Amino acid sequence: MDSATATARWRHRHLVGLEDLSADEIRFLLETARGFASVSTRSIKKVPALRGKVVVNLFFEPSTRTKSSFYLAASRLSADVLDFSAGGSSLSKGESFRDTARNIEAMGVDIIICRHGQSGVPQMLSESVDCSVVNAGDGQHEHPTQALLDLYTIGMQLGREDFDLSGLTVAIVGDIAHSRVARSNIHGLKKLGAEVLLIGPPTLLSRNFEPMGCEIHHDFDAVCGRLDVVNMLRVQFERISGPAFPSVREYSALYGLNQERMQRMKRDVLVMHPGPINRGLEIESAVADGPNSAILQQVTNGLAVRMAVLFLVHAAGYASATTPDDR
Amino acid sequence: MDSATATARWRHRHLVGLEDLSADEIRFLLETARGFASVSTRSIKKVPALRGKVVVNLFFEPSTRTKSSFYLAASRLSADVLDFSAGGSSLSKGESFRDTARNIEAMGVDIIICRHGQSGVPQMLSESVDCSVVNAGDGQHEHPTQALLDLYTIGMQLGREDFDLSGLTVAIVGDIAHSRVARSNIHGLKKLGAEVLLIGPPTLLSRNFEPMGCEIHHDFDAVCGRLDVVNMLRVQFERISGPAFPSVREYSALYGLNQERMQRMKRDVLVMHPGPINRGLEIESAVADGPNSAILQQVTNGLAVRMAVLFLVHAAGYASATTPDDR
Amino acid sequence: MDSATATARWRHRHLVGLEDLSADEIRFLLETARGFASVSTRSIKKVPALRGKVVVNLFFEPSTRTKSSFYLAASRLSADVLDFSAGGSSLSKGESFRDTARNIEAMGVDIIICRHGQSGVPQMLSESVDCSVVNAGDGQHEHPTQALLDLYTIGMQLGREDFDLSGLTVAIVGDIAHSRVARSNIHGLKKLGAEVLLIGPPTLLSRNFEPMGCEIHHDFDAVCGRLDVVNMLRVQFERISGPAFPSVREYSALYGLNQERMQRMKRDVLVMHPGPINRGLEIESAVADGPNSAILQQVTNGLAVRMAVLFLVHAAGYASATTPDDR
Repeated sequence: MDSATATARWRHRHLVGLEDLSADEIRFLLETARGFASVSTRSIKKVPALRGKVVVNLFFEPSTRTKSSFYLAASRLSADVLDFSAGGSSLSKGESFRDTARNIEAMGVDIIICRHGQSGVPQMLSESVDCSVVNAGDGQHEHPTQALLDLYTIGMQLGREDFDLSGLTVAIVGDIAHSRVARSNIHGLKKLGAEVLLIGPPTLLSRNFEPMGCEIHHDFDAVCGRLDVVNMLRVQFERISGPAFPSVREYSALYGLNQERMQRMKRDVLVMHPGPINRGLEIESAVADGPNSAILQQVTNGLAVRMAVLFLVHAAGYASATTPDDR
Repeated sequence: MDSATATARWRHRHLVGLEDLSADEIRFLLETARGFASVSTRSIKKVPALRGKVVVNLFFEPSTRTKSSFYLAASRLSADVLDFSAGGSSLSKGESFRDTARNIEAMGVDIIICRHGQSGVPQMLSESVDCSVVNAGDGQHEHPTQALLDLYTIGMQLGREDFDLSGLTVAIVGDIAHSRVARSNIHGLKKLGAEVLLIGPPTLLSRNFEPMGCEIHHDFDAVCGRLDVVNMLRVQFERISGPAFPSVREYSALYGLNQERMQRMKRDVLVMHPGPINRGLEIESAVADGPNSAILQQVTNGLAVRMAVLFLVHAAGYASATTPDDR
Repeated sequence: MDSATATARWRHRHLVGLEDLSADEIRFLLETARGFASVSTRSIKKVPALRGKVVVNLFFEPSTRTKSSFYLAASRLSADVLDFSAGGSSLSKGESFRDTARNIEAMGVDIIICRHGQSGVPQMLSESVDCSVVNAGDGQHEHPTQALLDLYTIGMQLGREDFDLSGLTVAIVGDIAHSRVARSNIHGLKKLGAEVLLIGPPTLLSRNFEPMGCEIHHDFDAVCGRLDVVNMLRVQFERISGPAFPSVREYSALYGLNQERMQRMKRDVLVMHPGPINRGLEIESAVADGPNSAILQQVTNGLAVRMAVLFLVHAAGYASATTPDDR
């Protein structure tokens, strides 16, 4: 696909969240990812789509997994990648976040990939700079590329290669309230037509999610048999000591995915997890490594999805920034 | 420009400081930077000038900004860049600095970019190794690429594209005594013909600078109206608690650049700052973001200047190291 | 050399230790390194052998030197290199080592270079993943690429370009008991036909090494005159305070390599050290920098050897993983 085709169906210079996208846009992005997925299976895993472009990883929360995935996605598109880690940066010299971003942009950067502990930072960033901004997770707001790779995995694993997920029942299980992964998934799943069940203890899952069009459940076993997909959220250890979190043993018994509970599921239920997994806590090893699990496939798909995101936001930015004759 | 042309006008294998360069050499470097500046505006921001060469960032002081600028400059020249950060290095195993440098060189490195808290380290390094050495800031000695990008910015912004700055009056304001940026700027500005005013509190600016051919002033307002360029130095927070530093409020009132003081300046005075800026301390936000400010342009120009530096020192090293037939 | 030739003489998808290799395989690897050595002397130090492949540095012990050498070796082969440092990784979120490795692999990685404080981790890793694994040092087990570069250096410096070392007497001096460098060297040297003398204090060198076919000596001076090569191990500072370690002064006097002891050696004895050196402790400056020293040459050779390792393990993995028509 060339940039012209891309920009006819995709006009977003930034990717801040799935809330902002239409179902058609999400599907187009996932189809683009499917095209890029084949690159990763070639002998030479590289295309020149972003050659001579600069992508910056601007991560204000520790991350190796997501950062590496973006790094490899950008490399596969032949971009140069700069790691602008927060630790040693000018931020420690008291510079404002906006100044740091504008300085990075002034170095001729094309795409900033931003993770931040505070919700809204990528949005604010996208309003401060002219280059493209991709949200790699902000506070408890959104983590759009994680949700996109989840949607991609569901579509590909369940034979919905047009990414129409209507008729599918998808559960997200765990600490929904604090999860940006859950929030982005809900937006994406609903837009693509899936039925969404949210399952977790009442302290971590309130009725607030009903207006998003989701069913709320506190009894995992009661709905097990209805699910086509179960997406197990990671238990955040820093929350375990909090008052809202049940004891680990209780959590694991009520909301963990173990072999016993798998017996009550559909035979071919798809098991997903954004990783890294806590074996024996929210998911048992036999399930994580079992035949229903698509956990490692999710990681692989993450690259294709992130290649598509980088390619499309750049194409859109390029289209809007340039006049015809200097393209 | 090819290497042969370059080496006819530039013979320095290392760049340790502007003190060592002639006016003609500085001008040639800035003209070379002007050529490279256009690379950054192309769709594919890359030239093959240093393809297959290895550039090492050897930074012994925390830095993201300068290190990133060098990284991107080297990448734009198609070099491979290795980050040899001091923290995890063999230096922590008690190895001498010279041994670390010679080991890096033995890996086939072409250019070492070195920042160090102690003045003189890049000079010593350049005497210990055969590859090229570029000073990225040493103690209170020099920060030559910062000064070069400042000179470049002045030339380009004020229509002096031949980089003859005679007739221009340039002020450097702040903690001159401890500033390697100031020292390099003074050398460069004087060589290119500018008049240089140093402005700051007596404790941070002694008469020692007069022999360099500068005017020394402690009253900013008294000379405001004469300036074509005002380069505001960053207040180093670690010095504020020292006895030589006035109170923050007093410093800001006497030596900060605010809108009121801008009223007393020439209408088209060029405002510069090496960054990162302390908004409201040495410079007011309205001025930093105002029409006279070239602060972000400086960052952009830094890439072109550093591309020129890397290209020229390598060409000179290559010319001196090789015999005609293996070129 | 093309991949087909390579895979006829080399079938190891992983390099865990020299213990697993035959003499012929080691020689073939060193010959391959000799071919790559010339790449580092070219103007453009790059070959496309691993273009579009991904190499990951997965280091769980601090290292700049070895990590940089692998980074540059991989870059010279045109691979993309990802640094998956242990500090900021998911391991700190409680993920198991095996899960981290399988996740990295799921990102489409071709070669994992692994250093770990515990012996056996690279072996275990090679059994958990489908991509290639190269041991960059594990506990007190092996450090195969260091030994290979030592063997390469001996061969090239002493005119044994077929890497038949029979008739040569090689001493390894120091803390043999805890040294993975020693262990890998012993395997390699014995296989290539050299006589191996181990020299050190009784507390750091027991009779356990005799079954490996080595002479054990506690009196350095008594055997000085017989040596063609002397490989001085680095004193690990963290062991000096231990009860097994003599005083620094005593160690240096008995087992350090100083000019006086050099007088008792053969005139053209080859002096080696894996680095970083402790000047004045296990080796005197005049010897380390003297005419017999090949210490910096070892560093240079390390790149060629690591290029050969990466090239060969990848070729072997590729041959075993692919069917003829998708090659």
